[in-house]
Amino acid sequence: MVDILHKVGIKAPLDEVYKALTTRDGLAGWWTTDTQGDSAVGGVLRFRFHASGVEVGGFDMKVLALQPATQVLWEAVDGPAEWIGTRISWELKQDGEHVIVLFKHQGWKEPVEFMHHCSTKWAVFLMSLKSLLETGKGAPSPDDVKIDNWN
Amino acid sequence: MVDILHKVGIKAPLDEVYKALTTRDGLAGWWTTDTQGDSAVGGVLRFRFHASGVEVGGFDMKVLALQPATQVLWEAVDGPAEWIGTRISWELKQDGEHVIVLFKHQGWKEPVEFMHHCSTKWAVFLMSLKSLLETGKGAPSPDDVKIDNWN
Repeated sequence: MVDILHKVGIKAPLDEVYKALTTRDGLAGWWTTDTQGDSAVGGVLRFRFHASGVEVGGFDMKVLALQPATQVLWEAVDGPAEWIGTRISWELKQDGEHVIVLFKHQGWKEPVEFMHHCSTKWAVFLMSLKSLLETGKGAPSPDDVKIDNWN
Repeated sequence: MVDILHKVGIKAPLDEVYKALTTRDGLAGWWTTDTQGDSAVGGVLRFRFHASGVEVGGFDMKVLALQPATQVLWEAVDGPAEWIGTRISWELKQDGEHVIVLFKHQGWKEPVEFMHHCSTKWAVFLMSLKSLLETGKGAPSPDDVKIDNWN
């Protein structure tokens, strides 16, 4: 098992950071504008990505746990084969003027090239989350920052 | 053992990407402007970071292997305790119009919060490398993109 780990610190109220991870509007502001589904515990959030107006894939995330201002936990239930069954965990804590977000994408079976890609791409989206909360403007797909030949 | 993995794709000549990872001038253009030392195999590169004009730390990397246009391998021989003995590997390959960079920072003993920070920060510096090669301008320290309370 190998994991993707990240950390960002965000100068914004803790409850706003939590909302950006737990509401469709919040998620659509930094990850992908095409965010649908049910954001409550037990629900499934559907994230879809588009290029040149055509849907090119996405992820379905079951919401396993929500602890206000503290933790969000998802399990990937549909999407690329490498993602299915993996878990994405967000831990929040206040540290001075920053809300610290500790991110983990756990349960990868092998450290394949796609995992390298997803690790860098998660960092870019975490910076988009930070930007959304600090400036009011994120960079969700389809206007996300491109990193390589897989976008 | 846990690893940091990343991938970027860079639209630039392969030999220029290799030079940006294997010469002091290249490294100073995307990681830290204060890059000193010997970039040949067996040499030690000294990377130092500054904030408000004061040196705040750095890393010494022994160059273990250089394979032109293909691979660069460093070992951290001085710096934060968590880094000492870890290895940083860069694999390069051409894929269509992109030079693919597969990055690994291997040998972390524990997935501590500092590892989360370093993972995100490496992604930001890899995007700085990409920007240097594609636009002529990177964002090396001290003008690097800040990600959290640890910078």
